[in-house]
Amino acid sequence: MNFKIIENGSVTTPTGFKAAGVTCGLKKSGKPDLAMVASELPCSFGAAFTTCNFAAAPVQVSRSRAEHEKTVRAIVINSGNANACTGARGIADAEATCAAAAAKLGIPAREVWVASTGRIGVRMPMATIEKGVGMAVEALSADGGIAAAEAIMTTDTVRKNVAAEITADGGKIHIGAMVKGVGMIDPQLRAVPHATMICVVTTDAGISNTQLAGMVGAGVEDSFNRITVDGDMSTNDTVLVMANGASGVNVAPGSELESAFAAALLKIMQILARKQVMDGEGATKFVEIDVVKATDVETAKLCAEAVANSLLCKTAWFGGDPNWGRVVAALGYSGAKFDPDKVNVFYNDKPVVIDGCDSGVAESELAKELKNREFKILVELNNGDADYWVWTSDVSYEYVKINAEYHT
Amino acid sequence: MNFKIIENGSVTTPTGFKAAGVTCGLKKSGKPDLAMVASELPCSFGAAFTTCNFAAAPVQVSRSRAEHEKTVRAIVINSGNANACTGARGIADAEATCAAAAAKLGIPAREVWVASTGRIGVRMPMATIEKGVGMAVEALSADGGIAAAEAIMTTDTVRKNVAAEITADGGKIHIGAMVKGVGMIDPQLRAVPHATMICVVTTDAGISNTQLAGMVGAGVEDSFNRITVDGDMSTNDTVLVMANGASGVNVAPGSELESAFAAALLKIMQILARKQVMDGEGATKFVEIDVVKATDVETAKLCAEAVANSLLCKTAWFGGDPNWGRVVAALGYSGAKFDPDKVNVFYNDKPVVIDGCDSGVAESELAKELKNREFKILVELNNGDADYWVWTSDVSYEYVKINAEYHT
Repeated sequence: MNFKIIENGSVTTPTGFKAAGVTCGLKKSGKPDLAMVASELPCSFGAAFTTCNFAAAPVQVSRSRAEHEKTVRAIVINSGNANACTGARGIADAEATCAAAAAKLGIPAREVWVASTGRIGVRMPMATIEKGVGMAVEALSADGGIAAAEAIMTTDTVRKNVAAEITADGGKIHIGAMVKGVGMIDPQLRAVPHATMICVVTTDAGISNTQLAGMVGAGVEDSFNRITVDGDMSTNDTVLVMANGASGVNVAPGSELESAFAAALLKIMQILARKQVMDGEGATKFVEIDVVKATDVETAKLCAEAVANSLLCKTAWFGGDPNWGRVVAALGYSGAKFDPDKVNVFYNDKPVVIDGCDSGVAESELAKELKNREFKILVELNNGDADYWVWTSDVSYEYVKINAEYHT
Repeated sequence: MNFKIIENGSVTTPTGFKAAGVTCGLKKSGKPDLAMVASELPCSFGAAFTTCNFAAAPVQVSRSRAEHEKTVRAIVINSGNANACTGARGIADAEATCAAAAAKLGIPAREVWVASTGRIGVRMPMATIEKGVGMAVEALSADGGIAAAEAIMTTDTVRKNVAAEITADGGKIHIGAMVKGVGMIDPQLRAVPHATMICVVTTDAGISNTQLAGMVGAGVEDSFNRITVDGDMSTNDTVLVMANGASGVNVAPGSELESAFAAALLKIMQILARKQVMDGEGATKFVEIDVVKATDVETAKLCAEAVANSLLCKTAWFGGDPNWGRVVAALGYSGAKFDPDKVNVFYNDKPVVIDGCDSGVAESELAKELKNREFKILVELNNGDADYWVWTSDVSYEYVKINAEYHT
């Protein structure tokens, strides 16, 4: 059973979802800063949150809903203020945001989630948020997915949304999604997403919380947890998958349709994760680090992440410098155990290091590969058959500029 | 028993050492690129090396000497070529370098060490090295310490040397030292130094290998292992402390003099480590991260290193942005366990975060502290009484420039 990707699809592609993006004044820039996604029907859900020890108030509130409730109906997402490190006051503000949306939507507050991104440590201006929530409810529309994807952006330069369609025996299922986050992006924790990233996925499939929990866990592991921009994890990361069953098609556990649904969900997460790295703060390169033939996955992962997070590698990529010494140095200090004399490294298909030494391929030839917007660094450890890959970007002058001068 | 620091002292300040720095043509820039330090008498020694899994050929050769020999007489250090990832050929080249120096000095090759820094993966041009070794032996002089400190520089902008004097009952003891390395600098491994750093310490004290081993281990732990510039560890790190006894003063185990000697050696290592961070590639800030009142040292260390290595913190410091959200985010993802509601953060003496929330001190006040060339970030976890500190620098446009365009 196959699925097709709808490139410009969004969270309102599936039946029975409305969304909105409005400008209520949280951002000094005057750009849209509050989004809402709402379902006409109660939704089952799957979710993942930051494991940062300083979890923001909205994360604490939404995580509590995830633990105690069986359904969700809406999520309010604001940019411009993270409501993190705001103490008990912040929790109360996040709850008040849910309550305000619930009152306007005529649903219980426990069915409304909240996610925030922006400056840490500043109290949420509640009058502004409440105004925004009112505006968003007014603006909710069945084609509001694009506006919502725009309203959650911070340092993102392009909105990131996509959808998929699965043709099942009983009819068509749609999955729609949006994500934000191109800085504070790092893949080091397990089974949960990180980075200042907020991702909302909607689907009109009928599917249980238990099924979604497994798919979200596996999905983030092979998508958002594989990307790194700067090695920093955020206080506010949230992924929510909402399923309202409005298609009338039920995804039975163990069915072929379930496999297709899981594959489509993973593909959507990977498309979004890829868009995040392509739009990484100041990024001029998209680099896949592929470590293969390792003794075990952990070894391959240590190697891949060390190279991906090496500031010296990242600046060399920016400079188009084939300086592979920095790649092997990163492999060497990664903490992974392997035999350095067996290591091969390739830039795309060109051999760089063979048996731990210079391949002899001219630097000018290697430099050509690094001129591409996208390239792959393949590392063969030749010690086993486990592998791991990550996607990352370079560090440019623009990265420094964005982060030396950023104030939401 | 006290010691005094001799600011412009060098490896030739102690009696019985000669040194030289020459230009043999390893660097395209035409700057000095080969140094030698030699003792008239055989020396006891203490040493530490990179734990990078891709240890360079000179590290392998010198480490083998450290394991199998009791004495050392001389070390050859070249910049411009790291002789790393050069396989069996590289080992033979490193041995040949020692042999060439030994022949000219009239001593056994097993008493000559070698250290290299520069480009990885390029075979050492042996004719050039051998010419350089000959030039260095000719140039050896009792006031050659400054020239040697200059010849080991790569991206360093200033030479780094210092000495200390201890007045003991039997006479004066001197300790002299030099270091290079302002990039590929990271503190994550234990009991060994890292970073592309090469440090040579000389002393005319009489002291045993066993005594020096303990002091070098403890000394690097509280100096070179506390600094980070870019989070990258090198293939070539080497620290050698050589003691020739020429002062006639013996440092007896357990004596007051031994304590003074250890304190002076540590102070010298800290002065050099500090110089490395001050001269960190592109650095405009020197930042001390001080984590106190932690449950244990490991927790404090995780916190300090997460903040010190955070690219978002480093770019904020460059921008003079008091954005403390990035500091707490780094503490949060560090993996350390602590109660976020008890955390206080200070910039110098100004409260930034109290009980996990904004202290209320105006941003403009906090920004003043970050305008200083040097400042301290104090983190109180309020969970115990362990602490840990690290020294780090910011990431600037110049850092990116140096590393996007660096080819020794």
